[in-house]
Amino acid sequence: MEAVKPYKKNFEYSYTLGAFPTFELLKARPDKAKAVYIHSTFTDREALEELCRKNKVPVLEGDKVIMRLSEKENCFVVGIFDKYECALEEKRSHVVLVNPGNMGNMGTILRTCVGFGIKDIAIITPGADIFNPKVVRSSMGALFRLRHRHFESFEEYRKRYPEHEVFTFMLDGERTLTIGDCPKPELFSLVFGNEATGLDASFHNVGTSVFIPQSQDVDSLNLTIAVGIGAYLFTQGGK
Amino acid sequence: MEAVKPYKKNFEYSYTLGAFPTFELLKARPDKAKAVYIHSTFTDREALEELCRKNKVPVLEGDKVIMRLSEKENCFVVGIFDKYECALEEKRSHVVLVNPGNMGNMGTILRTCVGFGIKDIAIITPGADIFNPKVVRSSMGALFRLRHRHFESFEEYRKRYPEHEVFTFMLDGERTLTIGDCPKPELFSLVFGNEATGLDASFHNVGTSVFIPQSQDVDSLNLTIAVGIGAYLFTQGGK
Repeated sequence: MEAVKPYKKNFEYSYTLGAFPTFELLKARPDKAKAVYIHSTFTDREALEELCRKNKVPVLEGDKVIMRLSEKENCFVVGIFDKYECALEEKRSHVVLVNPGNMGNMGTILRTCVGFGIKDIAIITPGADIFNPKVVRSSMGALFRLRHRHFESFEEYRKRYPEHEVFTFMLDGERTLTIGDCPKPELFSLVFGNEATGLDASFHNVGTSVFIPQSQDVDSLNLTIAVGIGAYLFTQGGK
Repeated sequence: MEAVKPYKKNFEYSYTLGAFPTFELLKARPDKAKAVYIHSTFTDREALEELCRKNKVPVLEGDKVIMRLSEKENCFVVGIFDKYECALEEKRSHVVLVNPGNMGNMGTILRTCVGFGIKDIAIITPGADIFNPKVVRSSMGALFRLRHRHFESFEEYRKRYPEHEVFTFMLDGERTLTIGDCPKPELFSLVFGNEATGLDASFHNVGTSVFIPQSQDVDSLNLTIAVGIGAYLFTQGGK
């Protein structure tokens, strides 16, 4: 293995920073794990070493490596894993992120989607790097529990998955999402725009534009909150 | 005015970093605004200067001051304002944050609450500093649209507001919040614990403990998402 350097987007591998996301990597995507660094002061190493042994992942000592990669206090474990792309499941519902900008938000969104059972995420590029360790960390490792795929345009995504009923979340959405009146489609794509700019007007022409009712006192809801409420309503609503 | 220094918790004043939260300060709490710094390259200064003039808030030049305080790119406006404490409205519903730990989360929560019309926030100390510029910024200035008050314990809060129906958000909550079965109280307090530890078991004994249904694949939902869904359900549900 080459020398362990701070993460860059063009690497073919990335890092899990912290015990929790590293456990998730080893449990959900052990085939992608290349090595795990454990700090000499880490107290809970037995379960982690056992999981590494079971999956034939080398355990390495390297307090300095961990310090260099983590940039944060309270990081005692670092995993190294190969990046990968997935095929989305055609028969499952999707969340589509159009040009997501913020890495912390992206991680929170992945965690939220998995929490509500949506395990297929399309990302329309350009967008934040899903494998950046900040995304992995803020996802709490949920990244490894889902399938993700990048598309160069929404049209490219749509062509590939024409059967999903599309709902675009827009401040001027035509349909207001209330508890008593939420669509209950079987197979859906929930589409969300960038934090600062939202979805442009062309998205009025794909599927149904929806709006989460909110006060005039705020500019908009935070993107993560919109995804959380959307995912909750559509997954609960379908049951 | 004393020299402008990077923010510390013990200051009696704080800063709005960025044009948006500064506008919100001037619109919603002009009486607390002490001064506004505008960067020499800021292009949209007319509306801001007009608002300052109207509210007799001095406009200052100080590119270096802005750089020193903001620590971020893209900050061209800084407001200085006096801190304050509020009385919560007895006849309005509340959100109660028990020992909130993360400043970004706190700001997002304030913005979300205002978005759903909940404008009274109780904070049980210790907790993140609601006036830290990071909170103000991530709230997008929503801090100035609501009333907040600190309490040393939940009991102290409860004694002061005994009439609210209390709902505690807990992973082992007794009542599952589904779309079809969400309580519809008129006057409620939604209580959320710390990001890492949640609410301790003693909170089973106050009001009704509730649970947002979620997959076993995640440890829990992010705190901000839980507040978002809770606030949405309870404010929509009451109508």
